[in-house]
Amino acid sequence: MNIIEGGVTAAMGFEAAGVEASIKYQNRKDMALIYSKLPCKAAGVFTSNIVKAAPVLWDKEVVSNSPYAQAVVVNAGIANACTGKQGYDCCKKTAGAAAKCLGISEDAVLVASTGVIGMQLPVERIAAGVELLVKNKADTIEAGLQAAEAIMTTDTISKQAAVTIEIDGKTVTVGGMCKGSGMIHPNMCTMLGFVTTDIAISKELLQEALCEDVRDTFNMISVDGDTSTNDTLIVLANGAAGNPEIRTKDEDYGKFKAALNYVNTTLAKKMAGDGEGATALFETKVIHARTKEDARILSRSVISSNLTKAAIFGHDANLGRAFCALGYSGVDFDPEKVDLYLENEEKTLPVYRDGVMLDYSEEEATQILSAPEVRILVDMKAGDFEAAAWGCDLTFDYVKINADYRS
Amino acid sequence: MNIIEGGVTAAMGFEAAGVEASIKYQNRKDMALIYSKLPCKAAGVFTSNIVKAAPVLWDKEVVSNSPYAQAVVVNAGIANACTGKQGYDCCKKTAGAAAKCLGISEDAVLVASTGVIGMQLPVERIAAGVELLVKNKADTIEAGLQAAEAIMTTDTISKQAAVTIEIDGKTVTVGGMCKGSGMIHPNMCTMLGFVTTDIAISKELLQEALCEDVRDTFNMISVDGDTSTNDTLIVLANGAAGNPEIRTKDEDYGKFKAALNYVNTTLAKKMAGDGEGATALFETKVIHARTKEDARILSRSVISSNLTKAAIFGHDANLGRAFCALGYSGVDFDPEKVDLYLENEEKTLPVYRDGVMLDYSEEEATQILSAPEVRILVDMKAGDFEAAAWGCDLTFDYVKINADYRS
Repeated sequence: MNIIEGGVTAAMGFEAAGVEASIKYQNRKDMALIYSKLPCKAAGVFTSNIVKAAPVLWDKEVVSNSPYAQAVVVNAGIANACTGKQGYDCCKKTAGAAAKCLGISEDAVLVASTGVIGMQLPVERIAAGVELLVKNKADTIEAGLQAAEAIMTTDTISKQAAVTIEIDGKTVTVGGMCKGSGMIHPNMCTMLGFVTTDIAISKELLQEALCEDVRDTFNMISVDGDTSTNDTLIVLANGAAGNPEIRTKDEDYGKFKAALNYVNTTLAKKMAGDGEGATALFETKVIHARTKEDARILSRSVISSNLTKAAIFGHDANLGRAFCALGYSGVDFDPEKVDLYLENEEKTLPVYRDGVMLDYSEEEATQILSAPEVRILVDMKAGDFEAAAWGCDLTFDYVKINADYRS
Repeated sequence: MNIIEGGVTAAMGFEAAGVEASIKYQNRKDMALIYSKLPCKAAGVFTSNIVKAAPVLWDKEVVSNSPYAQAVVVNAGIANACTGKQGYDCCKKTAGAAAKCLGISEDAVLVASTGVIGMQLPVERIAAGVELLVKNKADTIEAGLQAAEAIMTTDTISKQAAVTIEIDGKTVTVGGMCKGSGMIHPNMCTMLGFVTTDIAISKELLQEALCEDVRDTFNMISVDGDTSTNDTLIVLANGAAGNPEIRTKDEDYGKFKAALNYVNTTLAKKMAGDGEGATALFETKVIHARTKEDARILSRSVISSNLTKAAIFGHDANLGRAFCALGYSGVDFDPEKVDLYLENEEKTLPVYRDGVMLDYSEEEATQILSAPEVRILVDMKAGDFEAAAWGCDLTFDYVKINADYRS
């Protein structure tokens, strides 16, 4: 697997664009387009929130019922959630406008929105934006970056990742982009994510690979525990790489899954590290858990704990809070067997052994906690399973951003 | 039911004290005693966290196995959690010291701790504190207040409540005190609470009344979603009122439950409103839910949402976030039937109808949100059940307090 530059335009046959459409924000890009010259197999996972935004309802239809998909239109600033029939009609109009400009069918167009809940989208400006997007689309790395920038809300950096693998002598590329950064929580974490690939694969296996992979990637991050109304992750596969279509879970399928996992993990970690107001990427890794699910639940509970996140922000090794978060996770375990370590890239510091705090150096702990990436390692000493989860610290800026997000 | 002044010394036969023992804090009261001249029936509910502090383990024993209880010793500053065998031994020594000074049995002494996790308690200072407490104990309102002040950690106000009821011609008093204010979350919310009453009641009914009542009081508040290792709520009933002992769920039992509910609701709301860094008490009331449990889950989900809490802090009527929190609560409902209102003591403003945002006045909304007590009213239009939950806003000060709580 080779890590390469780029995002949604890295794979063959994909074009993208990002433009200023003044949907809500002014003087910045706020609409994005992904377009495939060839029809794509589409797979998607969507928010588990009962309150689903209109674009989620539209996309679920397209992924389930359309024979193929060929474009995605995204806007930032307004989420088109809690907007009723008018909101759904707007999705249809957006797809219709894109279909007309691109000369494809309306039901091959996916739509996605992120931003404020409750407001209606300005349909005319959306339609004008679509025209501009189609005019500007290109298959360059630059075009991919512009799309990644256009979907940002309170994100401070754009988020892309791409890799190539070899399948049957053909180079297959998987690339993606996503945005965070508030309302981020597992299942599906609050996010928009788009992955494009030129692999030839059956629709069933594409969906299965995606569903399996999100359990260890996007569903393992949290910024604030709020599962959004708009979470969407879509994978488009157009087959342009020319490999024999993958139809069974063979070695090639394994290679694709590894590539997808790399792209999704990279994007998910970027999202967690760029959580609203964050100053650090905060990872919790649980090892020697009794089951895989235990490991997942335990690690997520720690990275979701407000108190632990505030301690990380304060560079305070208050791992008692992490221990507490393990305890209320719902997983049954013996507290008197648990070891906790504080880690960064350079150092590992044992802080708890067999459930009791050790006499460690606070100075060393503060030093470790001052790194931009911090890890709490939890050894359950109970089995053979492990999992990692990613979050960020809880900061003044998180509160600031969310106390006046709408204004 | 008459609301009266006071707390744990309001009921007949109870004494209390609060003293400076320099356990961790300096120059403030940090140890409290509650003492009953008569042996008490004791009931208790404790944290559901797997990681239970040593005092929780000790108290569960006393409540389950001791024939009666007669005293509670509390310290603030160190939680005696994740302290292993040494921590449990310290509980025994604390109880032993109190038993000796008071001339009662060791297994009639309950202990409770709140503060930093991981540190061991200084046993000698605890023992010295116990002596001082016994020397200072009194049955006055002032003594009750001193105890309420001594158990505070980051609380900004002490929290007490008391009422009297008439049973069979006798005046029965129920009074209590509690402390918050971080690591507060349902089940049991992170807290220490102590209720004393002079009612004569069977131990079984006392425990049952308590268990039922916490579901609608202390388990309906949240400050930060972190369920602590130390949550403890204890009720002591010494029978001094002289009413015929309550042994069946008759009218008198109903009167006692109403009194207990008033005291617990008052204490729980005080705790929520004094959450770390809070500037407002934030209530969510859900009406017309399909089941009581639905109403509880939905209301708690909203008051626990970081994003909604930050919006309350910013006086921003971003009720889309509240709607979102209903949606990820786990309760199944039809979003297109839900109405949302913003309320304070003076005004009610409809903001969402049938799942769609109304064209309301932002100015009026901001005005409502500027009150010290703010309510989101949710009408599910699905049934006959209702519940309320209480939290607070998420503020800069919450982050500040928790970024350097230990220093």
